[in-house]
Amino acid sequence: MHISRKSDYALRALAFIADQKPDKKSSISEIAESQGIPRDFLAKILKELTRAGILKSFQGVTGGYQLVRPRESISFLNVIEAMEGPLKVNLCAGSDRDCGCNRYEECTMKVFWNKLQDSLKKTLSEANFGDPQYRP
Amino acid sequence: MHISRKSDYALRALAFIADQKPDKKSSISEIAESQGIPRDFLAKILKELTRAGILKSFQGVTGGYQLVRPRESISFLNVIEAMEGPLKVNLCAGSDRDCGCNRYEECTMKVFWNKLQDSLKKTLSEANFGDPQYRP
Repeated sequence: MHISRKSDYALRALAFIADQKPDKKSSISEIAESQGIPRDFLAKILKELTRAGILKSFQGVTGGYQLVRPRESISFLNVIEAMEGPLKVNLCAGSDRDCGCNRYEECTMKVFWNKLQDSLKKTLSEANFGDPQYRP
Repeated sequence: MHISRKSDYALRALAFIADQKPDKKSSISEIAESQGIPRDFLAKILKELTRAGILKSFQGVTGGYQLVRPRESISFLNVIEAMEGPLKVNLCAGSDRDCGCNRYEECTMKVFWNKLQDSLKKTLSEANFGDPQYRP
Protein backbone atom coordinates (compact mmCIF):
# COMPACT_ATOMS: atom_id res chain seq x y z
CA MET A 1 0.00 0.00 0.00
CA HIS A 2 2.35 2.66 -1.26
CA ILE A 3 2.70 5.34 -3.84
CA SER A 4 4.44 4.41 -7.10
CA ARG A 5 7.90 5.73 -8.02
CA LYS A 6 6.23 7.39 -10.99
CA SER A 7 3.75 9.35 -8.83
CA ASP A 8 6.48 10.30 -6.36
CA TYR A 9 8.64 11.67 -9.19
CA ALA A 10 5.64 13.50 -10.71
CA LEU A 11 4.88 15.17 -7.37
CA ARG A 12 8.50 16.22 -6.88
CA ALA A 13 8.72 17.56 -10.46
CA LEU A 14 5.56 19.61 -9.90
CA ALA A 15 6.79 20.91 -6.55
CA PHE A 16 9.86 22.20 -8.41
CA ILE A 17 7.88 23.78 -11.28
CA ALA A 18 5.34 25.31 -8.86
CA ASP A 19 8.20 26.99 -7.02
CA GLN A 20 9.36 28.91 -10.15
CA LYS A 21 8.10 32.30 -11.33
CA PRO A 22 4.88 31.75 -13.35
CA ASP A 23 6.45 32.77 -16.70
CA LYS A 24 9.55 30.61 -16.23
CA LYS A 25 9.81 27.50 -18.41
CA SER A 26 11.51 24.66 -16.56
CA SER A 27 13.62 22.30 -18.67
CA ILE A 28 13.74 18.56 -18.21
CA SER A 29 17.42 18.82 -17.31
CA GLU A 30 17.00 21.34 -14.51
CA ILE A 31 14.05 19.47 -12.98
CA ALA A 32 15.90 16.14 -13.22
CA GLU A 33 19.01 17.57 -11.65
CA SER A 34 17.31 19.50 -8.88
CA GLN A 35 15.02 16.63 -7.88
CA GLY A 36 17.33 13.68 -8.55
CA ILE A 37 14.93 12.05 -11.03
CA PRO A 38 16.24 9.84 -13.88
CA ARG A 39 16.01 12.02 -17.02
CA ASP A 40 14.26 9.59 -19.41
CA PHE A 41 11.65 8.60 -16.86
CA LEU A 42 11.05 12.28 -16.08
CA ALA A 43 10.56 13.09 -19.78
CA LYS A 44 7.83 10.42 -19.98
CA ILE A 45 6.17 11.72 -16.79
CA LEU A 46 6.17 15.35 -17.97
CA LYS A 47 4.54 14.27 -21.26
CA GLU A 48 1.80 12.48 -19.32
CA LEU A 49 1.27 15.49 -17.04
CA THR A 50 0.91 17.62 -20.18
CA ARG A 51 -1.60 15.21 -21.68
CA ALA A 52 -3.50 15.30 -18.36
CA GLY A 53 -3.84 19.09 -18.59
CA ILE A 54 -1.62 19.86 -15.61
CA LEU A 55 1.43 21.14 -17.52
CA LYS A 56 1.90 22.92 -20.82
CA SER A 57 5.03 22.34 -22.85
CA PHE A 58 6.94 24.79 -25.02
CA GLN A 59 9.19 23.49 -27.78
CA GLY A 60 12.58 24.82 -28.84
CA VAL A 61 15.82 25.97 -27.26
CA THR A 62 14.04 28.25 -24.79
CA GLY A 63 11.26 25.71 -24.26
CA GLY A 64 10.28 23.81 -21.16
CA TYR A 65 7.31 23.22 -18.89
CA GLN A 66 4.90 25.49 -17.00
CA LEU A 67 1.80 24.85 -14.90
CA VAL A 68 -1.46 25.21 -16.84
CA ARG A 69 -3.38 26.57 -13.85
CA PRO A 70 -2.60 28.26 -10.50
CA ARG A 71 -0.48 26.03 -8.27
CA GLU A 72 -3.04 26.04 -5.43
CA SER A 73 -5.56 24.40 -7.77
CA ILE A 74 -3.34 21.36 -8.42
CA SER A 75 -3.77 18.74 -5.71
CA PHE A 76 -1.59 15.73 -4.96
CA LEU A 77 -4.63 13.62 -5.87
CA ASN A 78 -4.82 15.25 -9.34
CA VAL A 79 -1.22 14.25 -9.94
CA ILE A 80 -1.47 10.72 -8.56
CA GLU A 81 -4.62 10.02 -10.57
CA ALA A 82 -3.00 11.46 -13.71
CA MET A 83 -0.19 8.92 -13.23
CA GLU A 84 -2.12 5.88 -12.02
CA GLY A 85 -5.77 6.37 -12.93
CA PRO A 86 -8.57 6.75 -10.37
CA LEU A 87 -7.40 5.96 -6.84
CA LYS A 88 -8.83 2.65 -5.63
CA VAL A 89 -7.48 1.21 -2.36
CA ASN A 90 -9.08 -2.15 -3.13
CA LEU A 91 -11.03 -3.64 -6.04
CA CYS A 92 -14.29 -3.32 -4.11
CA ALA A 93 -13.72 0.31 -3.05
CA GLY A 94 -15.99 2.77 -4.79
CA SER A 95 -19.39 1.64 -5.94
CA ASP A 96 -18.93 -0.09 -9.27
CA ARG A 97 -19.28 -3.61 -7.84
CA ASP A 98 -16.55 -4.76 -10.19
CA CYS A 99 -14.54 -6.36 -7.42
CA GLY A 100 -14.13 -9.66 -9.23
CA CYS A 101 -15.08 -11.85 -6.27
CA ASN A 102 -18.84 -12.28 -6.92
CA ARG A 103 -19.48 -11.51 -3.28
CA TYR A 104 -20.16 -7.79 -3.47
CA GLU A 105 -23.65 -7.92 -1.97
CA GLU A 106 -22.76 -9.87 1.17
CA CYS A 107 -19.19 -8.56 1.57
CA THR A 108 -18.68 -6.98 4.98
CA MET A 109 -15.28 -5.48 4.20
CA LYS A 110 -16.28 -3.05 1.47
CA VAL A 111 -17.59 -0.50 4.00
CA PHE A 112 -14.11 -0.35 5.52
CA TRP A 113 -12.37 0.07 2.14
CA ASN A 114 -14.80 2.78 1.09
CA LYS A 115 -14.19 4.74 4.27
CA LEU A 116 -10.42 4.34 3.95
CA GLN A 117 -10.53 5.40 0.32
CA ASP A 118 -12.65 8.48 1.08
CA SER A 119 -10.29 9.56 3.84
CA LEU A 120 -7.19 9.01 1.69
CA LYS A 121 -8.74 10.93 -1.22
CA LYS A 122 -9.66 13.80 1.09
CA THR A 123 -6.10 14.07 2.45
CA LEU A 124 -4.57 13.88 -1.04
CA SER A 125 -7.00 16.41 -2.52
CA GLU A 126 -6.39 18.91 0.29
CA ALA A 127 -2.62 18.84 -0.25
CA ASN A 128 -1.71 21.19 -3.11
CA PHE A 129 1.25 23.00 -4.63
CA GLY A 130 0.15 26.40 -3.37
CA ASP A 131 1.13 25.28 0.13
CA PRO A 132 4.53 26.81 0.98
CA GLN A 133 5.46 23.78 3.09
CA TYR A 134 5.90 21.69 -0.08
CA ARG A 135 8.22 24.15 -1.87
CA PRO A 136 11.62 22.59 -2.49
CA MET B 1 -1.88 3.14 -3.88
CA HIS B 2 -3.87 0.03 -3.15
CA ILE B 3 -3.89 -3.09 -1.04
CA SER B 4 -2.46 -6.24 -2.64
CA ARG B 5 -4.63 -9.20 -3.63
CA LYS B 6 -2.69 -11.22 -1.08
CA SER B 7 -3.55 -8.88 1.82
CA ASP B 8 -7.17 -8.67 0.73
CA TYR B 9 -7.45 -12.48 0.69
CA ALA B 10 -5.66 -12.73 4.06
CA LEU B 11 -8.11 -10.26 5.62
CA ARG B 12 -11.12 -12.11 4.20
CA ALA B 13 -9.76 -15.47 5.37
CA LEU B 14 -9.27 -14.08 8.87
CA ALA B 15 -12.72 -12.51 8.91
CA PHE B 16 -14.09 -15.99 8.18
CA ILE B 17 -11.98 -17.75 10.83
CA ALA B 18 -12.73 -15.05 13.42
CA ASP B 19 -16.44 -15.64 12.87
CA GLN B 20 -16.19 -19.34 13.89
CA LYS B 21 -16.48 -20.76 17.41
CA PRO B 22 -13.03 -20.48 19.09
CA ASP B 23 -12.45 -24.28 19.15
CA LYS B 24 -13.47 -24.79 15.53
CA LYS B 25 -10.68 -25.62 13.08
CA SER B 26 -11.34 -24.09 9.67
CA SER B 27 -10.10 -26.04 6.67
CA ILE B 28 -8.54 -24.51 3.60
CA SER B 29 -11.42 -25.79 1.50
CA GLU B 30 -14.17 -24.21 3.54
CA ILE B 31 -12.38 -20.85 3.78
CA ALA B 32 -11.62 -20.90 0.04
CA GLU B 33 -15.18 -21.74 -0.86
CA SER B 34 -16.86 -19.32 1.52
CA GLN B 35 -14.63 -16.39 0.60
CA GLY B 36 -14.06 -17.12 -3.08
CA ILE B 37 -10.28 -17.30 -2.73
CA PRO B 38 -8.15 -19.47 -5.07
CA ARG B 39 -7.22 -22.56 -2.99
CA ASP B 40 -3.47 -22.71 -3.69
CA PHE B 41 -2.96 -19.03 -3.06
CA LEU B 42 -4.97 -19.33 0.16
CA ALA B 43 -2.83 -22.26 1.35
CA LYS B 44 0.29 -20.10 0.92
CA ILE B 45 -1.33 -17.17 2.75
CA LEU B 46 -2.47 -19.32 5.70
CA LYS B 47 1.06 -20.69 6.05
CA GLU B 48 2.43 -17.16 6.20
CA LEU B 49 -0.19 -16.09 8.74
CA THR B 50 0.85 -19.08 10.85
CA ARG B 51 4.52 -18.14 10.57
CA ALA B 52 3.57 -14.59 11.59
CA GLY B 53 1.95 -15.88 14.80
CA ILE B 54 -1.60 -14.92 13.85
CA LEU B 55 -2.92 -18.45 13.12
CA LYS B 56 -2.09 -21.88 14.47
CA SER B 57 -2.41 -24.91 12.23
CA PHE B 58 -3.51 -28.43 13.15
CA GLN B 59 -2.48 -31.33 10.93
CA GLY B 60 -4.55 -34.36 9.96
CA VAL B 61 -8.05 -35.16 8.76
CA THR B 62 -9.69 -33.06 11.48
CA GLY B 63 -7.04 -30.37 11.17
CA GLY B 64 -7.34 -26.78 10.08
CA TYR B 65 -6.67 -23.27 11.27
CA GLN B 66 -7.57 -21.28 14.40
CA LEU B 67 -6.68 -17.82 15.65
CA VAL B 68 -3.72 -17.77 18.06
CA ARG B 69 -5.12 -14.88 20.09
CA PRO B 70 -8.49 -13.20 20.70
CA ARG B 71 -9.99 -11.81 17.51
CA GLU B 72 -10.21 -8.26 18.89
CA SER B 73 -6.42 -8.24 19.29
CA ILE B 74 -5.77 -8.88 15.59
CA SER B 75 -5.81 -5.66 13.59
CA PHE B 76 -6.01 -5.19 9.85
CA LEU B 77 -2.54 -3.62 10.11
CA ASN B 78 -1.16 -6.80 11.75
CA VAL B 79 -2.41 -8.81 8.79
CA ILE B 80 -1.30 -6.42 6.06
CA GLU B 81 2.18 -6.13 7.60
CA ALA B 82 2.40 -9.93 7.94
CA MET B 83 1.74 -10.16 4.19
CA GLU B 84 3.72 -7.19 2.88
CA GLY B 85 6.21 -6.16 5.55
CA PRO B 86 6.11 -2.83 7.41
CA LEU B 87 3.67 -0.40 5.83
CA LYS B 88 5.47 2.39 4.01
CA VAL B 89 3.44 4.74 1.83
CA ASN B 90 6.60 6.08 0.22
CA LEU B 91 10.31 5.28 0.44
CA CYS B 92 10.91 8.40 2.56
CA ALA B 93 8.05 7.72 5.01
CA GLY B 94 9.22 6.70 8.45
CA SER B 95 12.51 7.93 9.71
CA ASP B 96 15.20 5.67 8.29
CA ARG B 97 16.34 8.15 5.63
CA ASP B 98 16.73 5.27 3.24
CA CYS B 99 14.66 6.96 0.56
CA GLY B 100 17.24 6.42 -2.17
CA CYS B 101 17.14 9.96 -3.51
CA ASN B 102 19.99 11.54 -1.54
CA ARG B 103 17.75 14.48 -0.79
CA TYR B 104 16.35 13.43 2.58
CA GLU B 105 17.57 16.48 4.50
CA GLU B 106 16.15 19.14 2.21
CA CYS B 107 13.10 17.16 1.03
CA THR B 108 9.89 19.06 1.72
CA MET B 109 7.56 16.17 0.87
CA LYS B 110 8.57 13.72 3.60
CA VAL B 111 6.45 15.56 6.21
CA PHE B 112 3.39 14.89 4.11
CA TRP B 113 4.19 11.20 3.61
CA ASN B 114 4.88 10.72 7.31
CA LYS B 115 1.55 12.27 8.25
CA LEU B 116 -0.30 10.20 5.67
CA GLN B 117 1.45 7.04 6.81
CA ASP B 118 0.65 7.70 10.48
CA SER B 119 -3.01 8.30 9.71
CA LEU B 120 -3.25 5.18 7.52
CA LYS B 121 -1.54 3.05 10.18
CA LYS B 122 -3.90 4.40 12.85
CA THR B 123 -6.99 3.54 10.78
CA LEU B 124 -5.67 0.06 9.94
CA SER B 125 -4.63 -0.69 13.52
CA GLU B 126 -8.00 0.38 14.91
CA ALA B 127 -9.88 -1.99 12.60
CA ASN B 128 -9.91 -5.50 14.08
CA PHE B 129 -11.68 -8.83 13.80
CA GLY B 130 -13.55 -8.40 17.07
CA ASP B 131 -15.69 -5.78 15.37
CA PRO B 132 -19.04 -7.37 14.42
CA GLN B 133 -19.33 -5.20 11.32
CA TYR B 134 -16.57 -7.22 9.63
CA ARG B 135 -18.11 -10.66 10.27
CA PRO B 136 -19.00 -12.38 7.03
